[in-house]
Amino acid sequence: MPGRGADQGPGRGRPARPRRRAEVGPWDGEADVVVVGYGVAGASAAAEAAAHGADVLVLEHTGGWGGAAAMAGGFIYLGGGTALQRACGFTDTPEAMHAYLSAAMGAGADADKLALYAERSVEHFDWLVDCGVPFRAAFFDRPGWEPDADQGLMYSGGENAHPFAELVPPAPRGHLPRMADKRTGERGGGWMLMRPLVATAEARGVRVRYDTRFEALVVEPDGRVGGVVARHYGAEIAVRARRAVVLATGSFAYDPAMVARHVPLLVGRPGAAVEQHDGQGLRAAQAVGADVAHLHACEAALLADPGLMARGIVVDALGRRVINEDTYPGRIGHALLSHHGSQGFVLADEEAVDAARADAGPLAFLIPPRPTWVGDDVDQLERESGIPCGALAATLALYNRHAERGEDPVHHKAARWVRPLRAPWGLFDVRGHTAGFPLGGLRTDVDGAVLDVDSAPIPGLRAAGRVAAGLSAGGYASGISLGEGGFFGRRAGRAAARDGAG
Amino acid sequence: MPGRGADQGPGRGRPARPRRRAEVGPWDGEADVVVVGYGVAGASAAAEAAAHGADVLVLEHTGGWGGAAAMAGGFIYLGGGTALQRACGFTDTPEAMHAYLSAAMGAGADADKLALYAERSVEHFDWLVDCGVPFRAAFFDRPGWEPDADQGLMYSGGENAHPFAELVPPAPRGHLPRMADKRTGERGGGWMLMRPLVATAEARGVRVRYDTRFEALVVEPDGRVGGVVARHYGAEIAVRARRAVVLATGSFAYDPAMVARHVPLLVGRPGAAVEQHDGQGLRAAQAVGADVAHLHACEAALLADPGLMARGIVVDALGRRVINEDTYPGRIGHALLSHHGSQGFVLADEEAVDAARADAGPLAFLIPPRPTWVGDDVDQLERESGIPCGALAATLALYNRHAERGEDPVHHKAARWVRPLRAPWGLFDVRGHTAGFPLGGLRTDVDGAVLDVDSAPIPGLRAAGRVAAGLSAGGYASGISLGEGGFFGRRAGRAAARDGAG
Repeated sequence: MPGRGADQGPGRGRPARPRRRAEVGPWDGEADVVVVGYGVAGASAAAEAAAHGADVLVLEHTGGWGGAAAMAGGFIYLGGGTALQRACGFTDTPEAMHAYLSAAMGAGADADKLALYAERSVEHFDWLVDCGVPFRAAFFDRPGWEPDADQGLMYSGGENAHPFAELVPPAPRGHLPRMADKRTGERGGGWMLMRPLVATAEARGVRVRYDTRFEALVVEPDGRVGGVVARHYGAEIAVRARRAVVLATGSFAYDPAMVARHVPLLVGRPGAAVEQHDGQGLRAAQAVGADVAHLHACEAALLADPGLMARGIVVDALGRRVINEDTYPGRIGHALLSHHGSQGFVLADEEAVDAARADAGPLAFLIPPRPTWVGDDVDQLERESGIPCGALAATLALYNRHAERGEDPVHHKAARWVRPLRAPWGLFDVRGHTAGFPLGGLRTDVDGAVLDVDSAPIPGLRAAGRVAAGLSAGGYASGISLGEGGFFGRRAGRAAARDGAG
Repeated sequence: MPGRGADQGPGRGRPARPRRRAEVGPWDGEADVVVVGYGVAGASAAAEAAAHGADVLVLEHTGGWGGAAAMAGGFIYLGGGTALQRACGFTDTPEAMHAYLSAAMGAGADADKLALYAERSVEHFDWLVDCGVPFRAAFFDRPGWEPDADQGLMYSGGENAHPFAELVPPAPRGHLPRMADKRTGERGGGWMLMRPLVATAEARGVRVRYDTRFEALVVEPDGRVGGVVARHYGAEIAVRARRAVVLATGSFAYDPAMVARHVPLLVGRPGAAVEQHDGQGLRAAQAVGADVAHLHACEAALLADPGLMARGIVVDALGRRVINEDTYPGRIGHALLSHHGSQGFVLADEEAVDAARADAGPLAFLIPPRPTWVGDDVDQLERESGIPCGALAATLALYNRHAERGEDPVHHKAARWVRPLRAPWGLFDVRGHTAGFPLGGLRTDVDGAVLDVDSAPIPGLRAAGRVAAGLSAGGYASGISLGEGGFFGRRAGRAAARDGAG
């Protein structure tokens, strides 16, 4: 709403109110398509817009490409029968993938996006390969946050565990770019995804301005978004978008006020995001009337070894078991954070700890050298941990009673992981060991058009990646963000190249 | 954002895009302050705006006053030492009330609103009395959703139960207008609140147009909200607000698409709202750049007898206890809905059922004539209910073991309600017995100014009641909605009367 006061208010946010065309000076640059942010969604949008004939300019906040994606482990959630799945001996179909997503992404998820993503996932995998993203046809078979080496395929969403395994034939869909010497959080699969995408975009003539911090949208007299205002080393610049602006600015994980308003579960727990994820893109679009969706949704990682959890039991502060421990560890983290105040413990016996340690590979650091508390006496563990007297013992007795028969009728952990646990015990304190990022954002259609509250597209404005609400309405699988960021980023870029063409 | 297409899109929503002044015809009416909606927030805003010299026009969707408030049980959450609290022998302070609200309303709650509401709650009670709202100085001492007769005061937020009772000295703060022959859902305490508020407003000269359905805001060339567009028996009318528009249009409980996007927990479970709560006010304000807050928050009622729950135990589908059963039943409902998929059972023994029935009074209908399943054998109850084998027995054994000593170290139910439970058993199926309404909405300041994403007020626009985010960031107590609707409605009305006065 142009003309309003620009009082910045509390928080670290910069003014995001739109500028009228008349308010900005002469354009400092222009392009058919202006892409804001050079992570996975921005690079994919830029590459595809350029491939469809557009002159593309990317504005990037930092001094380099990659965004949060380049720091990520690198899972890309793809399926339906990709070449990699087939090479690893797995059968998958778009229908099975769609059934899984429909069950796993949460009530209220965007049905059109789920359907399209499942239907065209194979094509997106092939596109990534064509761009030069390398994958090694090897399957990583163990519970973990990511493979121990450069294997290319892994279960990353609990597809092979309750309740999904009973709903739909499981297939692993976590696709990982190959990197021989990966260093998670620095250079890993995400970096190996981004490098070829950026190379592809730039080979197609995409231009980039680094150190350029997006501030607000410029609105033309007819209501169309016609460009952006940004800051380059402190100076305000205005960049014209002849066809469309594509926002690919990431989440609001690092705006504490927005997190408190929308995802209070994540207050003080930002994870797997970069500081540039400050919500500016989301706010700037809201300011021109964009609608929002699923702002409460979040990913939640749990800093604990998945192999240890699968072999033990995970209980909350009241000694209650939380979930089947052999599922995607992000589901364990999400359950702990959402439903148990992030107060969790892992109970294991010596056999479980030894087996998990042997299995953990480079992630063995997630298993402390010693459990927080050890002993033969569950009563004592309860006293030490603060779990109410008798509560852990009751949970353990029930678990063991069924485990004697190799069953877990309570949480349905697969028989492979079920075994009676016996003293001596190790109890691991994982209270507060959760962190995550928001999954909600701008309401968009499948081509990235940003929708207003009447479900009408805002002319000249598209968005993709974590600034937009995507597949998730609360559920998650590793690889969804890089997967949908690229998939819907491409669609936004293609559509942007045609915007305003009449 | 004027000038955009008005494609209505899916859902029942009507176009909410703002109209430019030039788009609307001559004004069909005008006032200093136009209040949209004649529930508790609207009536309070209208009464106070008129008291401060404004010419006030209320536009009401339906053919009569009252909104959801007039259908409500009538709790008004007030404290800090009201005359009614004192007359019933209770000591309360603004500090204690503030401490309770800070603990109970959820992480991320609006600190300014909590502080002001606690500080000035006594004054608001006195104002209600001055308006003619009747209260009988009698305390209702039993667990329940509301008093059995016309008692005026009751615990309505779990203040006297864990964890709040240990944090802060408990005081009952659920204030109920007196009605001798109340009929909940038809005429009750809420009706007795609304009748005097409406009489007060109209005695002060407030005018009302009924059957007038709000559609959108009118934006002046300078960006100020200058009026509204509405429909009156199918005809579009435009009403000018010389000073301000106050939106008091209620929640979005009855817009299924908005519920799916923002509070998927409530899909298919609207409760304690009216069909006019269709989100139109929220969307119309978003369309002029209003920010939103806490859209995921909701109230959740549980259709089960509080006295029965307090005397028994509430377990989920896995046989796990959920919460201390002697707390505010809305907290039980919220915990079941948020953390246990709304899958709950109440286990009680014969003594508990008999005592609850004797105690329930007019709410005895919440206790079915027979439990869903009965018997002496917990194993059989598990088979019948689908609770995993041994899980209910384990929970019961742990509960009884501590109850033998009158303790509940797991969930901290007060000793008054703790007693070992013994066969014969009754198991009540309350799966899916939850319903509720959204608590989030427009971001406003304490005077109802609607804030944009830069925390700047949108000129000419105020909001109060459930269309706005208020005290809650996820937690709730009965009476918060009628309490804050009136309290912040008054403030919005007062401020609106001064708007544009320079």
